[in-house]
Amino acid sequence: MDTLFTINNLWILIATVLVFIMHLGFATLEAGFVQKKNVVNILFKNCMIIAIGLLTYYLIGYNLMYPGEAFAGGFIGRIAPMDWAAAAVSEADSATSAMSGYTDFIFQGMFAATCATIVSGAVAERIKLMPFLIFSTLFVAIAYPITGMWHWGGGWLAEMGFYDFAGSTLVHAAGGFAALAAVILLGSRHDKYRKDGSMNVIPGHSMPLAAMGVFLLWFGWFGFNGGSVLSADPNAVGLVFVTTSLAAAAGAIGAFVCSYIMTKTYDLSMVLNGILGGLVGITAGADQMSGLESIMIGFIAGIIIPLSVVFFDRIKIDDPVGATSVHGICGIWGTLAVGIFGAKAGISQLGIQFIGTLAVGAFAFLASFGIMYALKLVMGIRVDVEEEIKGLDIGEHDMHAYSLKEDGIFQLTSE
Amino acid sequence: MDTLFTINNLWILIATVLVFIMHLGFATLEAGFVQKKNVVNILFKNCMIIAIGLLTYYLIGYNLMYPGEAFAGGFIGRIAPMDWAAAAVSEADSATSAMSGYTDFIFQGMFAATCATIVSGAVAERIKLMPFLIFSTLFVAIAYPITGMWHWGGGWLAEMGFYDFAGSTLVHAAGGFAALAAVILLGSRHDKYRKDGSMNVIPGHSMPLAAMGVFLLWFGWFGFNGGSVLSADPNAVGLVFVTTSLAAAAGAIGAFVCSYIMTKTYDLSMVLNGILGGLVGITAGADQMSGLESIMIGFIAGIIIPLSVVFFDRIKIDDPVGATSVHGICGIWGTLAVGIFGAKAGISQLGIQFIGTLAVGAFAFLASFGIMYALKLVMGIRVDVEEEIKGLDIGEHDMHAYSLKEDGIFQLTSE
Amino acid sequence: MDTLFTINNLWILIATVLVFIMHLGFATLEAGFVQKKNVVNILFKNCMIIAIGLLTYYLIGYNLMYPGEAFAGGFIGRIAPMDWAAAAVSEADSATSAMSGYTDFIFQGMFAATCATIVSGAVAERIKLMPFLIFSTLFVAIAYPITGMWHWGGGWLAEMGFYDFAGSTLVHAAGGFAALAAVILLGSRHDKYRKDGSMNVIPGHSMPLAAMGVFLLWFGWFGFNGGSVLSADPNAVGLVFVTTSLAAAAGAIGAFVCSYIMTKTYDLSMVLNGILGGLVGITAGADQMSGLESIMIGFIAGIIIPLSVVFFDRIKIDDPVGATSVHGICGIWGTLAVGIFGAKAGISQLGIQFIGTLAVGAFAFLASFGIMYALKLVMGIRVDVEEEIKGLDIGEHDMHAYSLKEDGIFQLTSE
Repeated sequence: MDTLFTINNLWILIATVLVFIMHLGFATLEAGFVQKKNVVNILFKNCMIIAIGLLTYYLIGYNLMYPGEAFAGGFIGRIAPMDWAAAAVSEADSATSAMSGYTDFIFQGMFAATCATIVSGAVAERIKLMPFLIFSTLFVAIAYPITGMWHWGGGWLAEMGFYDFAGSTLVHAAGGFAALAAVILLGSRHDKYRKDGSMNVIPGHSMPLAAMGVFLLWFGWFGFNGGSVLSADPNAVGLVFVTTSLAAAAGAIGAFVCSYIMTKTYDLSMVLNGILGGLVGITAGADQMSGLESIMIGFIAGIIIPLSVVFFDRIKIDDPVGATSVHGICGIWGTLAVGIFGAKAGISQLGIQFIGTLAVGAFAFLASFGIMYALKLVMGIRVDVEEEIKGLDIGEHDMHAYSLKEDGIFQLTSE
Repeated sequence: MDTLFTINNLWILIATVLVFIMHLGFATLEAGFVQKKNVVNILFKNCMIIAIGLLTYYLIGYNLMYPGEAFAGGFIGRIAPMDWAAAAVSEADSATSAMSGYTDFIFQGMFAATCATIVSGAVAERIKLMPFLIFSTLFVAIAYPITGMWHWGGGWLAEMGFYDFAGSTLVHAAGGFAALAAVILLGSRHDKYRKDGSMNVIPGHSMPLAAMGVFLLWFGWFGFNGGSVLSADPNAVGLVFVTTSLAAAAGAIGAFVCSYIMTKTYDLSMVLNGILGGLVGITAGADQMSGLESIMIGFIAGIIIPLSVVFFDRIKIDDPVGATSVHGICGIWGTLAVGIFGAKAGISQLGIQFIGTLAVGAFAFLASFGIMYALKLVMGIRVDVEEEIKGLDIGEHDMHAYSLKEDGIFQLTSE
Repeated sequence: MDTLFTINNLWILIATVLVFIMHLGFATLEAGFVQKKNVVNILFKNCMIIAIGLLTYYLIGYNLMYPGEAFAGGFIGRIAPMDWAAAAVSEADSATSAMSGYTDFIFQGMFAATCATIVSGAVAERIKLMPFLIFSTLFVAIAYPITGMWHWGGGWLAEMGFYDFAGSTLVHAAGGFAALAAVILLGSRHDKYRKDGSMNVIPGHSMPLAAMGVFLLWFGWFGFNGGSVLSADPNAVGLVFVTTSLAAAAGAIGAFVCSYIMTKTYDLSMVLNGILGGLVGITAGADQMSGLESIMIGFIAGIIIPLSVVFFDRIKIDDPVGATSVHGICGIWGTLAVGIFGAKAGISQLGIQFIGTLAVGAFAFLASFGIMYALKLVMGIRVDVEEEIKGLDIGEHDMHAYSLKEDGIFQLTSE
């Protein structure tokens, strides 16, 4: 085998492993930000999403998203399972290939599942399990690969010159706007907004879990962005690591400063989401920016976070983890930033970026809205208020997340 | 140095790091599944096992397991510490070597310790610390390398044509059957099975910890299976990543469906163990299967989990984390699956697989039984019932896992 | 691009990712070892430190630490941001380069931030947030790069023949002695030492978090030490993996034995810190030792831990996480061990090691003392005793780490 091919392929495999662990990052972040009574439910959903995501991507998503050159400029790929027999690269072809077909599939498959996961946090604490799983299946199997194909699969956005390096729009804004549609249909948690216009703060049950999630997501983002170089090129991957890290760091500072000005407290949730906002923001142009540009993009994303979170609460969009702000709004910001900063900056590029993020965001919103609306009609998407009060862990799973009773007392659970 | 050698060696080192973090996966999985009062004890054991495992593997295990060609077809390797002086590969030999001796040792050493860890979950909440540590030392230093040598060290099972790619039998079934022997000798937790034949459900104290464990184990499994290719071959490692992931995903679905049919609830513990069952199941043939075959193997493993867990409870084998089902039963299933699916499928291969898994499982069972029985005679292996009720954290460690008293109250712990 | 260059660069990038996750390791370790009422504060600090560390290293630290050959033998580097334009390596130069400038920066930047993190654990539970953040900024931007330059940047210690492979002194002892100075100025927690000379044991709030931290730190240490080879050389990186792991394992055993002799209990905190002590101890000579020497170094480090922890408590240095023992004392031990064991052992080398660790430790101590003293005069560094009793989470962040109230009870937090 060609050695450079082997190195490039190895890096994509390792990046796959890093993107995989983002699913643990999402699981702990969301679990930390919800109430104790809904933790089993969140963990259950996050286990199922990765399972559903990989299986549907194998069965349909991969070829829908990467249909090959015959579909260039198009709107939709082909419907077929992954081409197992053709996935191996021959030694003769290895010098001109980027990676084996297996590697390409598993790297892209890990990406696909993250998109559905973004939704799960926003709809937490009141969505019914089964409709959510059906939604996830349809969204990750069909909706995500269609818009993904528009750019990465060589579709019409690619043709138009749209640029989204690792998915500020294709993954994050898509997930964020799908989440927004779902939240609108679902409504807020029953005790979130009061009739007098004031709001109930519902704190997450575990800040260590939430913080762990953010660190794991940053960790995985080295694979998410670094792997999107699609080779182990020492300059390109190195540059992406630096821009990604500086933007995340600046996102923390931006959210720290902005939330301190707004509330005069040092708000951990805002700093955590500021890091994520910085990461989402740099994702579209991680290979295009200088160090200072990365810092500016991340810092602005960090400032956006508290403003956006407050804005969504004002308009009574109840998103327990801030996914619409982090992934939706910062996803748009990052996409537009490619037209403002870096090698591609320019008014016409900015226009293209605007069209691309609008098109993908709108499609994701409408697809999500359509699926959720149908599910609402057919089976209902929301648990009843008694179950919501009691918690979904007991309502849906007959289980508690924690058994923290005092030590040393003998408790027979039934007799 | 030869570049392909350098790449291959690098991948095995990275795989080593991934297998290492499986020990955190086991630690959090087991900690999550036990009661709050035994958490320090589990963490302590898991810290000591990795320490004991690496040191004994250096001192004796490595050469017992990989004695070299002179021992081909044999039953036992040689007793000697790792050959430090001979571990470096010369530049001249690099083109024909797979990895350096250091790399080989550390990759295999990480594997060895996992085998003893499997036992620790099954015997949790009532085994005495010191005898368990002695057991682990003997098991990982002697028993695991002996059966490991039979196949991977070129022993009689290798000669016979037995196939176990990354250890469904050599690691998982061995650990699972060692666990079974230990549980039989140890007996169930005092409050698990009631005289009227009914059973007490003893819930784990933290589902987030357990879920974290499963994600970390899957994460590490990319190194466990992917590293077992013993090179960075782009087709082979890519294929193994895909089969491993699809089987894990299908394991989740299998356990979801089967446990829902059995109990009409969405059982998180079962889905978590279903993922692990899928991973254990694919491990023997991860390099032999197609995508669909991997899905079938994983799905069946997932179905096995709830059935096996119920079965062991019926026969009063009390295994708090389900290790006998996940590692023992799914380890057998995965080994047999090599004779049913994939390139090696066939009735004679199935027979060989059966003999191999039976031989290794029986040896592990007997070795574990023997060691535990001796320890039982000499020093006792079980804490008394008062300590069991009070919890091993206080009984063995004089420590609580958590101090979660209310904030803002000043508590002097003694005066 | 040259393939060996590409492999070497790739390994350093992956090592960077591993060192990054050490920040989660520190965050969970420290969070686990503090009281529940100060957990948000610790997490907040750890998020900000990595952000501050990376940004200041970009703006000033990198060139202060690695000023280039013109500064050989000197005491201080040059003040300038990272040279973005010059960071890419041309194809022509790739055969003779170790890694790209981006890769070098981000790997070193991840190291820099760990040094400040070491301090955060020692001063936990009573330091004010803002002065700590200012301290961290100055320490990581200026103090760490100055002593770092003395050895790794080609300064006077390098010229003298001092040897510190991956930072037992430059990172760990520097951090440990900076912590010591800060603790001396800050004073002990108000309820730690009683007037009658006895001591209040203040247990950490979560052993699972602490254990997770140790496993994640070990995990990251493969990148910390392995990446310090600065290439993917199969013998060198493999050797470092083995020595690092054996020392960590022996550290666990050393602390286990020593703490059992001292207290007759199996003390999890000591074993956890013993592992870290072993890791810190091997860091200066990880590429110089044989397997047995690594075991000896780690074992002695493990023995040091309980002795040092007791010693610091005797002299009323209140360090909630044991950072001065783990990083300070074991950092010195590891540095001296290079003069005692391995290829460089010898009385003159031992003398040089002693001078080096003394010089760096003294500089870090004085720099930390100076910065903290100035902050104490200007703004105060310690929260008042009411806030300390109530907890810094409420005092500084108006937030609880956990909301663990009973499920199913509807609580309106305000009306």
